[in-house]
Amino acid sequence: MFSVKDAKEVKRLIAEYFEGYKMDFQEVPLENSLGRITAKDIFVSEDIPGFDRSTVDGYAVHAKDTFGASEALPAILSLSAEIKVGEDILRELPIGYAAYVPTGGKLPQNADAVVMIEYTDDLGDGFIYMNKSVSAGNNVIYRGDDAKSGDVIIKANTTLKPKDVGALAAAGISSVLVKRRIKAAIISTGDEIAGIEESLSGSKVRDVNSYSINAALLEHSAEPCMYGIVPDSYEKIREVVAHALHDCDLVLISGGSSVGTLDMTCKVIESFGKPGIFVHGIAIKPGKPTIIAKVMGKPVFGLPGHPVSAYFIFKVFVKNVLNVLNGVKEEFESSIKAYTAFNFPSNDGREEYVPVRLERVGSRIIAHPVFAKSGLITTLTTADGYIIISRGDEGVVSGKEVEVIPF
Amino acid sequence: MFSVKDAKEVKRLIAEYFEGYKMDFQEVPLENSLGRITAKDIFVSEDIPGFDRSTVDGYAVHAKDTFGASEALPAILSLSAEIKVGEDILRELPIGYAAYVPTGGKLPQNADAVVMIEYTDDLGDGFIYMNKSVSAGNNVIYRGDDAKSGDVIIKANTTLKPKDVGALAAAGISSVLVKRRIKAAIISTGDEIAGIEESLSGSKVRDVNSYSINAALLEHSAEPCMYGIVPDSYEKIREVVAHALHDCDLVLISGGSSVGTLDMTCKVIESFGKPGIFVHGIAIKPGKPTIIAKVMGKPVFGLPGHPVSAYFIFKVFVKNVLNVLNGVKEEFESSIKAYTAFNFPSNDGREEYVPVRLERVGSRIIAHPVFAKSGLITTLTTADGYIIISRGDEGVVSGKEVEVIPF
Repeated sequence: MFSVKDAKEVKRLIAEYFEGYKMDFQEVPLENSLGRITAKDIFVSEDIPGFDRSTVDGYAVHAKDTFGASEALPAILSLSAEIKVGEDILRELPIGYAAYVPTGGKLPQNADAVVMIEYTDDLGDGFIYMNKSVSAGNNVIYRGDDAKSGDVIIKANTTLKPKDVGALAAAGISSVLVKRRIKAAIISTGDEIAGIEESLSGSKVRDVNSYSINAALLEHSAEPCMYGIVPDSYEKIREVVAHALHDCDLVLISGGSSVGTLDMTCKVIESFGKPGIFVHGIAIKPGKPTIIAKVMGKPVFGLPGHPVSAYFIFKVFVKNVLNVLNGVKEEFESSIKAYTAFNFPSNDGREEYVPVRLERVGSRIIAHPVFAKSGLITTLTTADGYIIISRGDEGVVSGKEVEVIPF
Repeated sequence: MFSVKDAKEVKRLIAEYFEGYKMDFQEVPLENSLGRITAKDIFVSEDIPGFDRSTVDGYAVHAKDTFGASEALPAILSLSAEIKVGEDILRELPIGYAAYVPTGGKLPQNADAVVMIEYTDDLGDGFIYMNKSVSAGNNVIYRGDDAKSGDVIIKANTTLKPKDVGALAAAGISSVLVKRRIKAAIISTGDEIAGIEESLSGSKVRDVNSYSINAALLEHSAEPCMYGIVPDSYEKIREVVAHALHDCDLVLISGGSSVGTLDMTCKVIESFGKPGIFVHGIAIKPGKPTIIAKVMGKPVFGLPGHPVSAYFIFKVFVKNVLNVLNGVKEEFESSIKAYTAFNFPSNDGREEYVPVRLERVGSRIIAHPVFAKSGLITTLTTADGYIIISRGDEGVVSGKEVEVIPF
């Protein structure tokens, strides 16, 4: 029924089909740039810092005036005028003089080091006693140490984090050219699907995927567009998919998992022409009945109808597509180190995703399995994350160290 | 100068001073609930699923009709009408009959198991040949298996993730009572601080913290309010802090790091009365000159002026305060397992935060230090995360396994 591919091959195909996808750019104010992706390299147009700064509260000196100084034999320098943070000092510091500078303060012209105040004595006699020697550059950040005018401060295709926003502020950059958010259509299909506000009757089930996928898209800085629930009709599904392909960068069709419904989704996708479907079935559990296609240059997913399966397909492959469309490298995945409290056999040749609940026991974190029949999304509410059992593994044995990926 | 406290003691004090902080509630539509914190336990008012469902494409049967069936000796059952997903079946399945059900379909009355289609033969003669026996419950999710009417589906004080949003949709819950976002004031003080759009002159430096802290607050679902740059004047700072205390839940003052400026921040904070400052200096590096106070029942931080220090104080302590105000438990911290490419001595009795850049070398991830003089925020742009060297450790040696916390 399926010509199933493994996860690695699917990611390779996604890169092959969608690398180089063209995203429009937009300018956003710095304060709204968190999580956005830079469109181009960003250059600085000024030295940071713009002057030689002290990193401590202390006395700016000519380093050589302190050579050999110790508590037993301090170097005695004349006190120059006090310098306040933010004040511009044009005068040169004469040889044999010391000038007070606070943390962040500008050094007087041709001073080359700062002695921390803790290593000095001011007896009020117009002299400062240096109990320690310093070398040139000690306790000083030179002009341009942080970045020089013309440097690239942030590269293209960087997802902006708070530290990056801070760096851009330091460079006086108040707006940023970023890629437009990826517009992603969510279409729920199936005669059995009911809206969340409908009263349930008969064998109807609620539309879960529109909401969980909407949230997952928001979490990844995409712009979800909910197209609602479409009944099992070739014409109706095709009409909505055509709209979505016109308006969005990515189309996610969440269908029934039964063979008949899957077939209809496939027919709709293939009706838009080549190259069409290039993945039909993935060797992961849950999530096998997944379709990935390229239609009118855009990725189209046929997600499994089961909410848990659809969620894992999102985490692994839709996220991957978002990164490829955005031209962003996959990040190093972070996880929580834990020890399993269970034997979990797994030997059907599929990469398996097992939800777990975490518990702190002494200095260790213990992972308990949350056994969810596929589709039981409410059982996931008690799970903190999941472990991945790779295709070749025969499962995990109790007490084994595992990496738990947080939800 | 400082009566320095360690990180653990600071967190204990934060809990002591701010646990039980009252947050108002608000109702939000489910599609906007990602990252919000539930105000109360959420109950379900219907069984999920609302009927006995098949988890596979196959034939609903009375399990006992299949006992002993094998490929050599199939159980032969009469074919009943086909059941479509979403269709309500009121008729009982007679003994000796099988009815086709697709994945997700409702079982006929008193059928108790489903035989996967792969284990059956339909020769078109009105009978279905079962090549495998099933037990009651096989391939079936019973009504209420996922959640029963009256169950708590999500507990109070839960930060909603996509999986939780999905579970709420499954329960037909279209709006959620959540805590209001924490309003956090950001005040930048210092005569030397220039706005990001000003042209720099003399020894002025740009306002970095307003932007990096703004982004960090957004990342943690808080609502930042930027109060701009206030000069080093007791009266002016006091006036702005008074406004901020009136309008916000949390006040973050980013001041100069020099002793004089710190003193002024302290005086302003103490002028609002008891209990006032309860942390004055933390044994972490960078970030030592940090003030934490309780003023008019609200937390007030005096953050270090150095952007890198302020950022780490945010990650460790402001985030902690946000969790305490929200009544949320600290999450299990996730990290990236890496091996250091360096010896890094650290023995001054402070918990140290060392930014690192990550590189994949074969199957290992190598962590390279990003040596940043305190305050050089642009060097952080090349860092992927940081490692924590705890207070008792003497540093890390090259090749050691470390946990890298991603930025």
